[in-house]
Amino acid sequence: MPFDNLFQAQLDKLKEEGNYRIFAELERKCGSFPTVQNHGEGADDVTVWCSNDYLGMGQHPNVVDAMVEAVKAHGTGAGGTRNIGGTARHHVALEAELADLHGKEAALLFTSGYVSNWAALSTLGSRLPNAVILSDALNHASMIEGIRHAKCDRVIWKHNDPEDLDRKLAALPANATKIVAFESVYSMDGDIAPIEEILDVCEKHGAMSYIDEVHAVGMYGPRGGGVAEERGLMDRITLIEGTLGKAFGCVGGYVTGSAAMVDFLRSFASGFIFTTALPPAVAAAAAASIAHLKQSAAERDAQKRQVAKLRAKLDAAGIPHIDNPSHIIPVMIKDPVKCRQLSDILMDQYGIYVQPINYPTVPKGTERLRFTPGPLHTDADIDKLVSALKQLWQQCAIAHAVA
Amino acid sequence: MPFDNLFQAQLDKLKEEGNYRIFAELERKCGSFPTVQNHGEGADDVTVWCSNDYLGMGQHPNVVDAMVEAVKAHGTGAGGTRNIGGTARHHVALEAELADLHGKEAALLFTSGYVSNWAALSTLGSRLPNAVILSDALNHASMIEGIRHAKCDRVIWKHNDPEDLDRKLAALPANATKIVAFESVYSMDGDIAPIEEILDVCEKHGAMSYIDEVHAVGMYGPRGGGVAEERGLMDRITLIEGTLGKAFGCVGGYVTGSAAMVDFLRSFASGFIFTTALPPAVAAAAAASIAHLKQSAAERDAQKRQVAKLRAKLDAAGIPHIDNPSHIIPVMIKDPVKCRQLSDILMDQYGIYVQPINYPTVPKGTERLRFTPGPLHTDADIDKLVSALKQLWQQCAIAHAVA
Repeated sequence: MPFDNLFQAQLDKLKEEGNYRIFAELERKCGSFPTVQNHGEGADDVTVWCSNDYLGMGQHPNVVDAMVEAVKAHGTGAGGTRNIGGTARHHVALEAELADLHGKEAALLFTSGYVSNWAALSTLGSRLPNAVILSDALNHASMIEGIRHAKCDRVIWKHNDPEDLDRKLAALPANATKIVAFESVYSMDGDIAPIEEILDVCEKHGAMSYIDEVHAVGMYGPRGGGVAEERGLMDRITLIEGTLGKAFGCVGGYVTGSAAMVDFLRSFASGFIFTTALPPAVAAAAAASIAHLKQSAAERDAQKRQVAKLRAKLDAAGIPHIDNPSHIIPVMIKDPVKCRQLSDILMDQYGIYVQPINYPTVPKGTERLRFTPGPLHTDADIDKLVSALKQLWQQCAIAHAVA
Repeated sequence: MPFDNLFQAQLDKLKEEGNYRIFAELERKCGSFPTVQNHGEGADDVTVWCSNDYLGMGQHPNVVDAMVEAVKAHGTGAGGTRNIGGTARHHVALEAELADLHGKEAALLFTSGYVSNWAALSTLGSRLPNAVILSDALNHASMIEGIRHAKCDRVIWKHNDPEDLDRKLAALPANATKIVAFESVYSMDGDIAPIEEILDVCEKHGAMSYIDEVHAVGMYGPRGGGVAEERGLMDRITLIEGTLGKAFGCVGGYVTGSAAMVDFLRSFASGFIFTTALPPAVAAAAAASIAHLKQSAAERDAQKRQVAKLRAKLDAAGIPHIDNPSHIIPVMIKDPVKCRQLSDILMDQYGIYVQPINYPTVPKGTERLRFTPGPLHTDADIDKLVSALKQLWQQCAIAHAVA
């Protein structure tokens, strides 16, 4: 085909570096998760250790039933943008549920967490007078792209460093509208932001605070409101962004905050206005998931237990992993080719699926396997994983010794 | 709340101009569409005349059943990005279905049509050497934002004017990678691009062609492949972009093209990589919808009949509307406040829902009501609509005469 040489040249470079991505083709079965059917290379049935359906809510009977009933009653799609015929009562109800979850006046749905970050930050940065966005150095791609799209001034502050943020805020002109953007749980290292200290600094300088809680909502806080809920800080944050696609088991993103701010984003964000609304049935399923996790801590407690167990067993087996206070357990490999090889061996020989995390998701040289235990991983699943890793580590040690 | 004054100031301005948007809160019922329950102001049951579920496929039994069965069997969400555990066999099957629909080697799913345009254009424009994107003057917001995000050179050519495009391509340096981006059906005026002439010009200058067929797929061409299929031109186009959220009745977007191009976008587009995949059940429903419309022309034929009927009856009633060869019938009002008032009266007094289309969806001064008849609008629905409009136009004429 014409132009293919242009595309192929860049793909070849990716392959040479070992960063070419191969997707595992899987088939989830309700009731069997985290074991799934594998349609690609490797074992037929595999246990997933890298899912963002952190609590298995994607197969929870309440959530499945809510979606099935809504599809049967209301159909498969919204049929329009939110403004042009696409607002269902399910969207309105879900936005009320989300505002309540975070103790805010209002919430606004987006088609994804990516779009919510991109659209909210680009709209705030481009429309507020003299806006400057101060972005944590390790913020997610969706936030980086939103800031880039805003074309406003931006300042990168050292990851999770309130003192550096303080210095950088102090250096800004008095008339700047300052927006401090950061995450609670950083998904690649699993570390958690010092939210209270960051908010102290924001308030000292009159800055808005924008927190991404996508890897926390559903899992942290007494009602699943995220780390900010757990620490009693939600009311001090200007904008809380979250997702329906991870612990809530569905798809979609959202922001919450004051009624005026939400109305502002509703009225001006291109990525909200000019796109088909989420299917009402997705909204119904997400609302059921949130409602369940508001009143049930069983899933969160079981997740914490299995995370602690996997960490302890990795320690006992001498498998090094990044220590952090979250549910994410990264095992550093630091080489894209080895990372892919280990992942392939686990899939082929052990029925264990963990995707290699390579560039551009993480910086080159920090490639890793990243395990996310959940309440549905059994003790036997954990034992099997640790045993497999132990064997592979021993083989690597032998290979090193012989080399 | 702090900062609310900043947001409120811009909202107040919008309200003063008459451009503040109020969403109709609706509830679709399977089997009753385009009649829906209205949860807001106005009649309880209203007939929707502005839906993008153009063929009513969102309530088609094949589509509903496919989604229900897939949710029951596989759950509510994908559980991850396409790369990290989120690729289901349903995504792979849908991509094959889409490639086949457009006669291309491969296809790639995105979470929405907006994201597919934004991500594809920004990735092409930013990564191809010396890229210049030549954009039709009336391209959709998602394309404009993608081009803006690419930060490459861009050239705007006169709407649907191949001669202007020819001149602008001729003025570019020989080493530029030229990408010509346009739509087939423009949704606000309902006009259709001279695709063959545009492709002639692209080929003359060695430019890639990028067509957005979101308001055409499912509805044009013997298998619903869009206007390019109807005109036998699909094989001459580099990239065809479409949506699952309009005539196919679901949600999501896609691009199709050569295997190398699709692999390139799969490997480098931030808006594809860093976002949760569509629910497998959405993919299953969309595939069922496409498969049905590939072999059934009944919905397309009935839509054409009802479009022709509404046009003829509007003509007979003396209601001016923009003449065009598509299924979209715009009635120009040219004032945001009047446009909203007419919409309110139709909703309140006649049980007819048509959203006022105001700025920023259309330029100021071109506000309109926009009717999209489908196969499920009955002759009685059409008579009721025309009768209501006739009464309102007579009242306006009286008001003008008295004023």
